[in-house]
This record gives sequence, C-alpha cells and structure tokens, in this order.
Amino acid sequence: MKMSYIENRKKWEEDFTFYIKVNVRFSETDLFGHLNNTIPFVYFEQARIEFLKSIGFMQHWIKNNSDIIPVVADLQCDFLHQIYFDQTLKIYVKPESAGRSSVDLHYRGVNEDGRTVLTGRGTMVQISKGSGKSHPWSEEEKQLLMRKENSTLLK
Amino acid sequence: MKMSYIENRKKWEEDFTFYIKVNVRFSETDLFGHLNNTIPFVYFEQARIEFLKSIGFMQHWIKNNSDIIPVVADLQCDFLHQIYFDQTLKIYVKPESAGRSSVDLHYRGVNEDGRTVLTGRGTMVQISKGSGKSHPWSEEEKQLLMRKENSTLLK
Amino acid sequence: MKMSYIENRKKWEEDFTFYIKVNVRFSETDLFGHLNNTIPFVYFEQARIEFLKSIGFMQHWIKNNSDIIPVVADLQCDFLHQIYFDQTLKIYVKPESAGRSSVDLHYRGVNEDGRTVLTGRGTMVQISKGSGKSHPWSEEEKQLLMRKENSTLLK
Amino acid sequence: MKMSYIENRKKWEEDFTFYIKVNVRFSETDLFGHLNNTIPFVYFEQARIEFLKSIGFMQHWIKNNSDIIPVVADLQCDFLHQIYFDQTLKIYVKPESAGRSSVDLHYRGVNEDGRTVLTGRGTMVQISKGSGKSHPWSEEEKQLLMRKENSTLLK
Repeated sequence: MKMSYIENRKKWEEDFTFYIKVNVRFSETDLFGHLNNTIPFVYFEQARIEFLKSIGFMQHWIKNNSDIIPVVADLQCDFLHQIYFDQTLKIYVKPESAGRSSVDLHYRGVNEDGRTVLTGRGTMVQISKGSGKSHPWSEEEKQLLMRKENSTLLK
Repeated sequence: MKMSYIENRKKWEEDFTFYIKVNVRFSETDLFGHLNNTIPFVYFEQARIEFLKSIGFMQHWIKNNSDIIPVVADLQCDFLHQIYFDQTLKIYVKPESAGRSSVDLHYRGVNEDGRTVLTGRGTMVQISKGSGKSHPWSEEEKQLLMRKENSTLLK
Repeated sequence: MKMSYIENRKKWEEDFTFYIKVNVRFSETDLFGHLNNTIPFVYFEQARIEFLKSIGFMQHWIKNNSDIIPVVADLQCDFLHQIYFDQTLKIYVKPESAGRSSVDLHYRGVNEDGRTVLTGRGTMVQISKGSGKSHPWSEEEKQLLMRKENSTLLK
Repeated sequence: MKMSYIENRKKWEEDFTFYIKVNVRFSETDLFGHLNNTIPFVYFEQARIEFLKSIGFMQHWIKNNSDIIPVVADLQCDFLHQIYFDQTLKIYVKPESAGRSSVDLHYRGVNEDGRTVLTGRGTMVQISKGSGKSHPWSEEEKQLLMRKENSTLLK
C-alpha cells in the first residue's frame, strides 16, 4: 500500500511513543463480521484526546463556556488488515508538524501480533467558537506539542 | 411477551399517531447479522426529538446557553423480532402521561410487514442545568404535551 | 427513584462482584455536554460480554457459522445522575435468575466518587439462528451462570 | 483548503449526480455543540451503500454466507464547515475511477444553504472472505460502476 503521508514506513512506525489500548466492542462490528470502517476514527479521537490530555491541552478546552476549542480539519485512515471483535489494539499517536494554530497528528493501530492494521493522519485546528477563526498556539503550547518525548524524530 | 407498561396491546398499538421513518444503516448491524441492541435507543431519541419539535419544545432547549434542558430519567425496550440491515422502520412515539416536570413517552417500532418489532417507554424530565433540579412545565407546555392529536386515547 | 426490579437497594448494590471499567469517550457525549442516553446500553453490552467470556460462554457463540447465538429480549436503564466526558465508570453485571434458555442480568454503573449513576437490567435468550427458536441451556451452562462467585446472593 | 484529490473544485462539485439526504441526529453531536468528527464516515458509508444498491451491487454481498464482500481500503474526509444538530445534508457520491477489483469513490456533503461542508474520498475493494484476496469485477460490474449516469464526467 502507498500512503502518501508516510515516507519511510519503518522509521515512521518506530517513531511513535504515545499510545492507548482499546478493546474492539461487539457493537463496533458489522454484519460482515469485522470492525466497521467508521470506528477507527473513534479510536483515533480517543488516542488524540489522551495525548492532548497528557500535555495539558484538553483541560481548558472542555471548561464550560470556553470560546477556544479544537476542531478536526481533515482525517484519513488506511485499513491495512481486517480487525475483529475482542481484539486489543494499541492506537499510537504522534504530532508530525505544527502550524500557527494547527497540528498534524499521525496514527498507527497495532494488533496483538504486532501487526500494523491501521495507519492514519489528520490536522486539528484551534479555533474561536465565537468568531469561527483560527486561534494561534502560544509559544509554550507549541513547545509542548513538539517536545521530544512525543516522538523520537522531533528534536 | 409481557410488557408491564402495556395493558391492552391492541389498543396500545392503535393509539399512536406520530412516527418517523428510519432505514437501518449498515454500521448499525453487528457480527450476528442483525441490528445491534443498542441502536433502537438511537431511533427512540430521534423519534422523541421529532415529536418534541412538532409541538415546539426543542427550539428553546437547544438555544445556546439554555439553562433548561430535557434529560432522560429512564428507558426500556422490548425486542420482539430481529431487525435487519436496510429494513425501513416506522418508529412511533406518544405521550402516555405527564407529571409536574416530566413526561412518560411510549415507543413502537413497526417493520415493512406491519409487524411490531420493538416496543418501549421512558420518562423524560425537564431540569435546570445549573441547579440540577427539575423544572416544571408551564400550563401551556402541559397542554401541548397532552393534546388530543398526540395520541387517540388522550382527551 | 423507584426501580421495580430492585427490592432492597443496599443489598442489591452490594451483591455485584463482576465489573469492567469504561472511560467516557468524547464521541459519546452530546450537545447538552453530558453522556448521550444511548451509550449506557453500549457499556451494558460490553460488561455483559466480558462477564459471559469470564464463564466461557462467548467463545462458541462467535465461532463462524454458529447456529446458536444469544439475543437481547429486553433492556432497561435508569439514569440516576448525569455522566460526563472522561469519567471512569465501573459497570457491574450479575445474573439475577436463569430460565430454561434465558438469563436475567442486572447492571450497576458507579462513578469515581462511588456514586451509583446507572442501574439497569435485561433478559438475554439463547436462540437458534436458523429456526429463530429458543435453545435451552445445558445443565453445565446453567450452573456456570448461577454459580456463587457471580453474585454474593446466589447460593 | 487544498484537497489533493480534487483538481478543479467547481467541476468536481458539479460532477456528482447521486445523493442521499441525512438529518443530523442529536446522538451524533458532541459536547462542543456540533457534529462529532467520526460521523461523516457513517454518512459516507450510507451514501456509498445506497449508490451500490442503485446499481445492483449490495444484493449479493449481503446474502448469507457470501464469500465475496466489499471492504474499505482507505477513507478520508475534509471538514470545511461545522455541521450542527438537525441540519439536513445531501451526501453525494460518485465513482472516480475503477481498478481490477477496486473503485475509488468521492463524496461531497452539502448543507441546506447549498454550501459544501464536507468533501472526501475512499477506495473500496472487493475481496474473498475466505482467502482475503481481492476479487476482480466482472466486465458487467465494471460497466455498471463507470456508467455515464453515475457522474457527468464519465463517458
């Protein structure tokens, strides 16, 4: 498979450090007997949020009446292998690059055999709910997003 | 099947007037090849909201910063027959009785053959988000909830 | 709140032994800012399945082409307190009674403060996919369902 | 926004002929007050399946025990504008190109104001469940996929 957002697959895979574990729910399967194709985006969101919590970003976004919220600008997912009920997946997430008010996050889903079953990416943008306009990261936020521990390739 | 909330099944069934149509989505099935058991509650919510819209209730609840919102106090569903991908169901809803700040809504799902495949009920309560306390219906709201057109048994 | 399926609330609550932990996902909230009312049934299903796995029941049901599958006959849920994003809940499940081919399971959801936020119950029936008819438990299955460890009240 | 899969946005938009209508459900919103980012993929699947039904493809795939099924190889979505509860969207779908056993489908979501709020694409592959290998389209299937009526640009 060619994924335009991955240059060197081996390096790209090794570069992740942060992950969550998810167990495939029965209600997430479909009549073809495997995980429905809409669910990896649920897992990506959960991984993204746990990552953002780990660097202290979620807390103020979900405060009541916060005007600044993160929105998803785009998302993509490659389904490399079928995924089945009751499998436990590691969903890795890492920041690839940060813009003025956005961050490009990459995702990798790995099954119990260590096989990469999902890859993906998506850009998230911080906006003002009121104006609908993008809201720039502070210098501190940018540093937190791109700090070394988030991915072995960042320096 | 005994459903404790139905006294006379025939009368109960005939008593509904309001319904929405839903088409069973592929993503709503599970690996047993039928509609997953969590989905009828999604249909009930959609029917409930369309009903509440039809009597003018939703509009102010979903206004930004409305302190008064409806919450679900309880829900139940009886699954009389299996439901399959791509079936079109009529989901009926009717108010059964209204309390000071609550309303008991009944549900009935009917497939294309006219067979009742789902029955259900649940109480919804109007509360203040801030205080968490129940918020009484106005006299006008109570009349709208219990007006004759909503169910042939109301008078 | 009166829940007709609970006689003695304190005893009923203490009687659970099996539980799973779930973390409320962002995608499971709705625009009222809390857990959407359709999601507890997803949690109940996950708890039910983990319980059934723990006594060895799921394994043959999900075998390819198994004619015998469990179906949900009814479900109900009482929503005692609002549930919010990122809360971790313990979802308890216990068998209350078993019929010829069915089992009545009870559910209790507890938040981090030890508060019961959800209670529920539902009957599950073992059926033959082909005939649609109920399929009786074996003597061994019935014993596994009703063994002492599943609930302190069973003897 | 740059979407690498769209060359000429105007032409690309006009090129769609097939669509379904969806009404944003309450349970599909999240605590930020808008449509959760995982749901457009549910809409894309529904549009894709209705399109495939319209050319006669779904019928044999969902037959009991069909060995040949379609799987999603990749999916992507660009979220151009926020989407809100109770909006009615037209979800357009068109085949862009077909391979030996695959088809690249494009998606466009339009709100009531005629504004494009979502764009997307994804490749679907026909495989054998048993072998996991891709299964080529018949000549007739390829013609149905790429017939003129599906998109004004096909000839």
